[in-house]
Amino acid sequence: MTAYTATVTIRPKRGVLDPEAETTQQALSRLGFDVNALRSADRFEIDFDAESSEAATERAEEMAERLLANPTIHDYDVVVTDR
Amino acid sequence: MTAYTATVTIRPKRGVLDPEAETTQQALSRLGFDVNALRSADRFEIDFDAESSEAATERAEEMAERLLANPTIHDYDVVVTDR
Repeated sequence: MTAYTATVTIRPKRGVLDPEAETTQQALSRLGFDVNALRSADRFEIDFDAESSEAATERAEEMAERLLANPTIHDYDVVVTDR
Repeated sequence: MTAYTATVTIRPKRGVLDPEAETTQQALSRLGFDVNALRSADRFEIDFDAESSEAATERAEEMAERLLANPTIHDYDVVVTDR
C-alpha cells in the first residue's frame, strides 16, 4: 500500500447558474476591480492509502460521484500524487 | 493590456478548524472510504485585463486580501496565466 493524495476539483457544469461566482464578481466590481469573468470551484485534498495510482484515482472518482460532487450539476476532475 | 486568468486558492490556515473538511471526512468514512486526512479549499478563477503578469498578480492578491480571503484565518495563493 502506498500513501496517495487525491486533489478533487468540483465546478458547476457549463450553463448551470453559479450564484457564488456572480455575487463575488459583483462585490469585486463594487470594490473597483474590473473583472471580465469569474468562476468558482471547490477543492478537496484527500490523503489515503491504495495499491496503485490507478486504484487511487478510481477510489477518488468514486468519492466524487458518491459524495463530493452532484453529477447533475457539477463537473469534477481528479489528480492523484503519491506522498 | 493583456487578458489574464488568475487562479486564487484559499484554504484555512494550519491550526484553524475546518468543519467542512471534518464533516466530509466523516461522511466518506460512513460510506466505507478509509481516509487518513482531508483538507478543503475554495478556488476562484478570475479573468481580467492587466498591463503585465506582475500587475495581474498584484491585482489578484489585492482581490484576495480585500474580499476573497479572510487573512486572519485563511492562507491563499495566486497563480496567473495569460490567455
